[in-house]
Amino acid sequence: MIGRLNHVAIAVPDLEAAAAQYRDALGANVGAPQDEPDHGVTVIFIELPNTKIELLYPLGEDSPINGFLEKNPSGGIHHVCYEVDDIIAARDQMVASGLRVLGNGEPKIGAHGKPVIFLHPKDMNGTLTELEQV
Amino acid sequence: MIGRLNHVAIAVPDLEAAAAQYRDALGANVGAPQDEPDHGVTVIFIELPNTKIELLYPLGEDSPINGFLEKNPSGGIHHVCYEVDDIIAARDQMVASGLRVLGNGEPKIGAHGKPVIFLHPKDMNGTLTELEQV
Repeated sequence: MIGRLNHVAIAVPDLEAAAAQYRDALGANVGAPQDEPDHGVTVIFIELPNTKIELLYPLGEDSPINGFLEKNPSGGIHHVCYEVDDIIAARDQMVASGLRVLGNGEPKIGAHGKPVIFLHPKDMNGTLTELEQV
Repeated sequence: MIGRLNHVAIAVPDLEAAAAQYRDALGANVGAPQDEPDHGVTVIFIELPNTKIELLYPLGEDSPINGFLEKNPSGGIHHVCYEVDDIIAARDQMVASGLRVLGNGEPKIGAHGKPVIFLHPKDMNGTLTELEQV
């Protein structure tokens, strides 16, 4: 059911420094910063040949990334995102298997303009897991 | 310089339960457990269309995963692995940019039989980062 790994999101304490590092030290293809005010993040995508790394930086005082960076001041891997064809069918199968969906359980429009849900990290081996309908 | 995302490694406290979850709840293509005694891990690969998830479980008392699971009893994302064409050239460019390589700085033969190095997570936004020559 899950398809491609859409991205790995890494929360970073200094977005410019992280972008420069991926561009200069790692020689990767680094995009421009994009503010996502509805999600409280500024993101930069690192385009790899087969998937993307999403650098996440807090935007605003209520950003969901603030707490993560308080606990992980150097930054860290925040979540992984798998693609699904039908997010309702995927959700229903996962909930029937005992996985918990964060929030009210209904898909929301994610940072890429597509329906997403997040699975509870405690049910997923400590891994915050996003599903995105593509 | 960095190429494909070869895999995302997730340390899990119960390998059979994690494999069953990816197979049954997430509908993924789950391989058989493989013991890697030289690396102190048992691994299961989840084959996605564009990359792999590597489930990691400790093998033996000296496993490098034991400490991680003590700190993260539910499990968690342990590292990401990028492919490179020439691991010496990649290492030299990264070291010249100020990144630290774990261990003695020389490539070792990794769990897939190929030369690997690991970059210090504190230099990589809290992300343990493996490079594998392919």
